[in-house]
Amino acid sequence: MDANPVLAEALRGNWIENRHRGAFAVLDAEGTVIASAGDMDRPVFPRSAIKSMQALAIFDRHAFDRFHHTSEELALACASHHGEEVHVNAVGAFLDRVGLSIEHLECGAHQPTNGVARERLRETHATPSALHNNCSGKHAGMLSVALAMGVPTAGYVSREHEVQRAVRAAVELVIGESLTEDRCGTDGCSIPTWAAPLRAWALGFARMATGRGLDAGHAAAAEALFDAATEHPLLVAGTGHFDTLVMDAFAGRVMQKGGAEGVQCGAIRDKGWGYALKCDDGNMAASQAMVAGLLLKYADPDEAQRQVLEGFARQPTLNVRKAVVGEVRAVL
Amino acid sequence: MDANPVLAEALRGNWIENRHRGAFAVLDAEGTVIASAGDMDRPVFPRSAIKSMQALAIFDRHAFDRFHHTSEELALACASHHGEEVHVNAVGAFLDRVGLSIEHLECGAHQPTNGVARERLRETHATPSALHNNCSGKHAGMLSVALAMGVPTAGYVSREHEVQRAVRAAVELVIGESLTEDRCGTDGCSIPTWAAPLRAWALGFARMATGRGLDAGHAAAAEALFDAATEHPLLVAGTGHFDTLVMDAFAGRVMQKGGAEGVQCGAIRDKGWGYALKCDDGNMAASQAMVAGLLLKYADPDEAQRQVLEGFARQPTLNVRKAVVGEVRAVL
Repeated sequence: MDANPVLAEALRGNWIENRHRGAFAVLDAEGTVIASAGDMDRPVFPRSAIKSMQALAIFDRHAFDRFHHTSEELALACASHHGEEVHVNAVGAFLDRVGLSIEHLECGAHQPTNGVARERLRETHATPSALHNNCSGKHAGMLSVALAMGVPTAGYVSREHEVQRAVRAAVELVIGESLTEDRCGTDGCSIPTWAAPLRAWALGFARMATGRGLDAGHAAAAEALFDAATEHPLLVAGTGHFDTLVMDAFAGRVMQKGGAEGVQCGAIRDKGWGYALKCDDGNMAASQAMVAGLLLKYADPDEAQRQVLEGFARQPTLNVRKAVVGEVRAVL
Repeated sequence: MDANPVLAEALRGNWIENRHRGAFAVLDAEGTVIASAGDMDRPVFPRSAIKSMQALAIFDRHAFDRFHHTSEELALACASHHGEEVHVNAVGAFLDRVGLSIEHLECGAHQPTNGVARERLRETHATPSALHNNCSGKHAGMLSVALAMGVPTAGYVSREHEVQRAVRAAVELVIGESLTEDRCGTDGCSIPTWAAPLRAWALGFARMATGRGLDAGHAAAAEALFDAATEHPLLVAGTGHFDTLVMDAFAGRVMQKGGAEGVQCGAIRDKGWGYALKCDDGNMAASQAMVAGLLLKYADPDEAQRQVLEGFARQPTLNVRKAVVGEVRAVL
């Protein structure tokens, strides 16, 4: 297997300390490759980067018709949120509104991603709950799907459950490829994750952003999800996070979503291009540098947008005494 | 530049999620290459993996003669300790014994590496001090060198200070190469770090472990440091850490030391071999898997040693609900 190219590197002093390889694909909705690097046909786990695709099941299975989910709820279904008060409260209200509660969540509990939220929990000697789990909004959405389908909610995370079959079918429809058992794993939040080529994920996001290549129902659902995510960037990630800052800056032009282990997906709506990127070694900071470099190159940023992207395309490295000793930088 | 080979990979379910490339060298004290992978001639920052080499300055500049440093103090000078009570107290006593105190440390403060120690600090609303810095023992050793040299301690971390010149000279002597200004950076604890080829670091450790290729004085100093590190593995790292467990298991046969950003160095004493390894992307877990694989192959482990190494050569990946969803594993 050929090595993917180095797309980010870490400099210390005047010498390169680390090298991060990766691949990416930028496609339009017809499958034309606008740009790529490395092997975009090697299947990769998309992890949380495709939550918006998974959320299509909310429309497919009539949960949207039944519960009239708000734009905020849809954004939470697409989110890897940071467990801040706003997120925890909103997911709690989401569950409440569909007649369920925290006990129905099967994502498990972890400390909030946001440092201030983490500190506040510690100070009050509280333990994190499943609501703090960055995936709790997605899980609320999946529970909503179970209710709308009239199937038991218990076990909704398992690969064989009707909910996960619906999610899988929705994703397969958008990317135009089968997700197969020979490349399947379990995600951090216990649901299945399926590997597919970067080319397919990028195509799927181009379709999500434009509706082209989708039937009218899926086009409308994709538009609602794209709108929800880009209208509520704080709900999709959290204070100060790359995804939030990028979507804030691009004000609807770009949907951007990271996934664990160095995955970055999204779409540049006005161009009609979807993109997908994976850092081979799973380093998140490096993958953010890479995708910031990608957006600098292909998203025609204005000055404010450029400033946000450049802050991630070149990230200073600090030592213990907070002196700048190097940087992680994109080398696209 | 050719890509180094994949030496570790992360499996999720039945599919490879991440790939970690790297290089290593295993040499004897005469410079014969016993084994290698990837580009062992590419200079890499050794970071904390060569603290034992840096500690040779304690002998070169007669700090050992003056203060009669104990085996525990020498182990701390070689340590990336975890800020546990035993470490904090021991470094405090070290400083006290040379007539200095925490105010003289220029390493900066960070939270203890050890989780229990971190939690204890939090519970008592205490802030971490420079004693908790994993490098505080090394810095105590450097302060001891400054005293023995009769130079001001202030600024001992800077590249131009007499102490760092002494440290640099000691390292150059052992590896038989010049450390040059064109490949220099600042370490996490503010001292300079110099890049040199893995081949040179491996050769240096073979010399440290055997005394071969060194004059009698340096051979004795290296022996004292090697003995100190392997007799006090808990002081060199901390509870449950790879370096501590490996040195405990090998009971003097192996010195093993990690450095930040995926560096692993050490020596297999009875074979007379030194080794040096760098994970290209800086991932620590992957570099531990790699070096565990290296030691399984080249250190002739007995059953108990094999068990320790195999626990790192294949490390389970857990999800939020603590289910095993994959593994990080060496592929040497």
